Amino acid sequence: MANLRLPGPTPVPPDVVEAMSKQMIDHRGAEFAEMLRRITANLQRAFLTKNDIFVFTSSGTGAMEAAIVNTLSPGDRVLAVTVGNFGDRFARIATAYGADVNVLKFPDGEAVDPERVRQALKDDPAVTTVLVTHNETSTGITNELGVIAPIVKGEFDKLILVDAISSLGSINLPVDAWDLDVVIAGSQKGWMCPPGLAMISFSERAWKASETAKMPRFYFSLAEAKKSFGLGQTPWTPAISLMYGLDHALQQMLAQGDMESVYAFHQKIARYTRDGLKALGLKLVATEEKYASNTVTAAYLPEGIKDEDLLNMLRDDYDIIAAEGRGLLAGRVFRIGHMGYVSTEDIDDVLAALKEALPKLGYQPAGAA
Amino acid sequence: MANLRLPGPTPVPPDVVEAMSKQMIDHRGAEFAEMLRRITANLQRAFLTKNDIFVFTSSGTGAMEAAIVNTLSPGDRVLAVTVGNFGDRFARIATAYGADVNVLKFPDGEAVDPERVRQALKDDPAVTTVLVTHNETSTGITNELGVIAPIVKGEFDKLILVDAISSLGSINLPVDAWDLDVVIAGSQKGWMCPPGLAMISFSERAWKASETAKMPRFYFSLAEAKKSFGLGQTPWTPAISLMYGLDHALQQMLAQGDMESVYAFHQKIARYTRDGLKALGLKLVATEEKYASNTVTAAYLPEGIKDEDLLNMLRDDYDIIAAEGRGLLAGRVFRIGHMGYVSTEDIDDVLAALKEALPKLGYQPAGAA
Repeated sequence: MANLRLPGPTPVPPDVVEAMSKQMIDHRGAEFAEMLRRITANLQRAFLTKNDIFVFTSSGTGAMEAAIVNTLSPGDRVLAVTVGNFGDRFARIATAYGADVNVLKFPDGEAVDPERVRQALKDDPAVTTVLVTHNETSTGITNELGVIAPIVKGEFDKLILVDAISSLGSINLPVDAWDLDVVIAGSQKGWMCPPGLAMISFSERAWKASETAKMPRFYFSLAEAKKSFGLGQTPWTPAISLMYGLDHALQQMLAQGDMESVYAFHQKIARYTRDGLKALGLKLVATEEKYASNTVTAAYLPEGIKDEDLLNMLRDDYDIIAAEGRGLLAGRVFRIGHMGYVSTEDIDDVLAALKEALPKLGYQPAGAA
Repeated sequence: MANLRLPGPTPVPPDVVEAMSKQMIDHRGAEFAEMLRRITANLQRAFLTKNDIFVFTSSGTGAMEAAIVNTLSPGDRVLAVTVGNFGDRFARIATAYGADVNVLKFPDGEAVDPERVRQALKDDPAVTTVLVTHNETSTGITNELGVIAPIVKGEFDKLILVDAISSLGSINLPVDAWDLDVVIAGSQKGWMCPPGLAMISFSERAWKASETAKMPRFYFSLAEAKKSFGLGQTPWTPAISLMYGLDHALQQMLAQGDMESVYAFHQKIARYTRDGLKALGLKLVATEEKYASNTVTAAYLPEGIKDEDLLNMLRDDYDIIAAEGRGLLAGRVFRIGHMGYVSTEDIDDVLAALKEALPKLGYQPAGAA
């Protein structure tokens, strides 16, 4: 089996596969209702929130759309803070639905500078809502949401919508402590499940915003979701097999009562990956340790090496599936995912393969004798 | 294992479960591209169309939304022809996105009268688009789409959007022969897969409409889908395990070269179900055989019997999961699904259980000695 080192989809452990193999049940029956209630209660523990949580049958992008269309009206002024491809996508969705989007873009590879968020909100008082990415999958950067959120909420009292698709479940993100209104996650990241489910938490304040939000919505309507979830149902037929998987995976992740050990694991394996890549002489995109993502690491390609050549060699000769760069970093970096079902051995394999493969492609580590 | 006799989700055969148990792969890699191309080619064979076909990670309702938002602008006049709950939903989605909807509603349990569609289009020349349900899951009625479509297309030259969620894959629906612009289907119906994938075919004329369609869209944007499917990818991360299942199931269904044997099977088992229910003295909602659905049968509850009592008894004493009524038929009918992975023995079990259970609940068949 290949060593799947993408930042999603991530490998699914055998026990989750087994859980997903159960026969279908009535999605309007008691057994499903019990499972849905357990899933949402466990998600509240993982999100560290008392807010409502809903699960959509969609990719994370669907939940990004849900975050926007349930809180905004066409013409609403939005500050979209982006540090890469997925931050850009969040802004594009808001634009597609008619929001008036002010994009605060940082160069790919940089983190959000909280001071510039403060300045942007000072300069643009019409902003009602801030969109921000917690962990930018395309660059391996984790923004200091614990610093940004108090500015957006405490200082300027704006609504905050957070894309935490590639962080939640792997990186500490206390939704209530940071007063985050809408936070979204995706099953194929740290949750050890296949893609196909997206999760969204929705605060009281977000509900208040939704009452006047005029963007059209139906499939992603949270009012519809709330009505049905109250009955232990989803408004539209859910991806039952994936729900089985998420239900099982959440119980495993929370087996020790909270997510601390899961976060500690990701912190450790991420550092191990970064140290290993640096020891090979590679330069990481995240130059500052405090912004380095614990779920995915992007490293610059050594000069003269094409991403395609490296990724193909890793795949064909070592059975390792790594990811290419995206957006402005396309062709300049490669990425190693290390979230969810991953072991030190998986990372050792990657490092050993790179140690062999890079010289074959002409790489001479700086300072090599 | 329970005898799951819902009109979706339907039981998933062991070989499809096994197919879905494969490990994740790169959804931007060659193996996924090959699978996606095989799936879309096989769907074209099942839909009997040369039109573009896309697969969404969503329930069928998501594809209903896609049908509307990719072809219409707010204010567009739409004729929504409905014979039940799901026809009503189609109209609601169009309304939610700002269409000006003229609802032509037939009483629950009746089929569309094509003559009244003709009259409605004569009376309302501003209509640009007609929404119609092929098979109404809530009542077990199959509309005569082969008669309705030539009126909508040939006589009045309107765009036609078809909800075929509970028919396509089980009931003959030649998309190109009937000149249907947008047709949608759902994985948990006759396709022997879990819920979570929706399929949509999109004609040249629908593409032309989409160029000027102003309803906002992002997750369900077919322009985004087309760009990505051309590369053997989906625009957003797909539900990979469900795609494995659909890929396998389609190959099984098309093993004999076309869908004829699948349609013949559904025709036969549906008639068997109807005959069995009638032999018990029950009255079917579909009084005319030509409108009786080959995927789901709704029967009126005998007087004095509550749906809850019957459904609970079937579940608790016979391990049979049947469905309640919906919409205006709620509380007045029960429904038996017979699509996808179903055998004569499954139906025999239902009939035998009803034969025992109904008298326990006080039923005296009319004419019983």
